[in-house]
Formats: sequence, structure tokens, C-alpha cells
Amino acid sequence: MKSWLFVLMLGVVAARTFYPAHILHAEDESTGDAVIAVLTDQQAAWNRADMATFMQGYWNSPDVTFVGASGITRGWQPVMDRYRKGYPDAKAMGHLDFSQLEVRPLGKDAALVLGRFHLKRDSDEMSGVFTLVFQRFPESWKIICDHTSADAKTP
Amino acid sequence: MKSWLFVLMLGVVAARTFYPAHILHAEDESTGDAVIAVLTDQQAAWNRADMATFMQGYWNSPDVTFVGASGITRGWQPVMDRYRKGYPDAKAMGHLDFSQLEVRPLGKDAALVLGRFHLKRDSDEMSGVFTLVFQRFPESWKIICDHTSADAKTP
Repeated sequence: MKSWLFVLMLGVVAARTFYPAHILHAEDESTGDAVIAVLTDQQAAWNRADMATFMQGYWNSPDVTFVGASGITRGWQPVMDRYRKGYPDAKAMGHLDFSQLEVRPLGKDAALVLGRFHLKRDSDEMSGVFTLVFQRFPESWKIICDHTSADAKTP
Repeated sequence: MKSWLFVLMLGVVAARTFYPAHILHAEDESTGDAVIAVLTDQQAAWNRADMATFMQGYWNSPDVTFVGASGITRGWQPVMDRYRKGYPDAKAMGHLDFSQLEVRPLGKDAALVLGRFHLKRDSDEMSGVFTLVFQRFPESWKIICDHTSADAKTP
């Protein structure tokens, strides 16, 4: 049984992966690297307020699914619309960091990612946890399902 | 590209699956059936307050992961302990229904499930959405990651 790959993302530039290499196949390592690269690109795009590039990380399909506090959003365009509504400009988008990323390969063409996000804006901060399912497509690995939960707010 | 399998669970006994059969392989159908069977067994176990059998649906590993409002719980025993603390007896467990289940096979040995839960107790009701990642093990399909979000409460 393969273990989770424990991955720590140290900012956009320094994103590296750590693997317990003795129990993993090269294939798993390449899956981990590829999936982390997608998230690194997403984080960089978000932080330059480039929502269109951020959205490249998601499967461009009516079946892509985002699950959040407001329920289920299905389809690439509705997911994009949801982001654009919630984060209409650079000020609202703020600065995003992913951390504590763990990649678990699911066969050759899918992977599960667990991680945390932290969003810092002039006016507030928020953080939480996400589980992502990635699938390998001919052009790239893409998120097919994103389930994100904000941390409970402590007053 | 395979579509999601749209699956409606109509109670424990009548749980059936619906597939757009022309685009699916027999293998996908058997994955859908197997995964739904695990959830049907879980629902039945919960509704007779049999937490030990309910927990059989989860991978018995220190790596199994439950993500909920209170954060990440990792490991079969901690997940069990969390359920036992939150739902200590039949009255607290109430009556659980899963609905709107959709199964998306991820290769031969993994699957993503999206669904809703509804819990009815004497004192209250709660509902929400979950995403589950299943993996095929020699003995059965098991949940390796459960991310559950309660619906936002409307006062």
C-alpha cells in the first residue's frame, strides 16, 4: 500500500516535494511533481490577480465540481463565475498561500491532494482546508473536484 | 472521457444505480455498485446505532482522513473516536440518509463519490454534502478520505 506523499509548499518559487522514496515508484514521484506544479501555477496566478490562468488548473468541463460553504457548484464556467463574484479584483483576491500539501496517487491517472490555504487581504484573513481530486488529461493534470472548508471562525 | 455516474439512493433497501450505459464500461458499473453497497451498509449500520460496523466502511489505516468543520482527523481510531464523541448513543445518532450520490470511477482501483447526508434526531436535523475517495482493497472498497461540510444554518 502506497503511503501519502507528504509535501510542503514553501511559497511559489521554493515549492518542492519530499517523498519517502524507498516506498514509492518513480511514477508516483512524477505524479506528485506534476500535481504540485499545477497548484504552484494556480497560486502564482492568483497572486497576480490573474483569475483566467488560475482557472486553468480546473478541468474545463460541465462536470468539474466545486464544493464549499455555499454548496455544490458544477461546471467550469459556474466555478469561474463564483470566484469572480467572490473575488472581483486584486484587492479582494489578496495574497494566497497553499501549505501542508499531501499528494496521494490513485493509480496512474488520478491523485488526491489534501492541503491548507491561507488568504491575507488588507481587510481580513481567512484560512481552511481543501481536498482536491486531480485527473491526468492529455495536456495536463487538472482538478476535477475541489472541496474547500473554511476554518471555524474564532471570535 | 467518462462521465460521472449519477446515482440516486432511495433508502437502504431500494438503493439502485442508474448509468448512462452507452458510455460506460462494465468495470465502471461494478465500481459504482460496489461503492454504493459500502455506503448502503454504512447507512444501515448507523441507523441501528452500530458504529463499529459503520466504521468498516473506512480504510483501517493511520492514513485514513476525515475532514470536517473541526479540521482534519487522521487515522481509523481517531476517526472512530470522533464519531463516538459526537454521536455517543442511538438517540444522538438519529436517522441518517444519504442521497444524490454520484460515483466517478478513477481508474480501476479508486473512485470519487459526491453526495448529500441528512440526519434527523428528536432534537434537531442537520444536512450537508460530502466528497469521498474510495480505494479498492483486496477485501472491499474502503473510504480513504471523507470531506464533509454541513449546510450553512439558516436561522
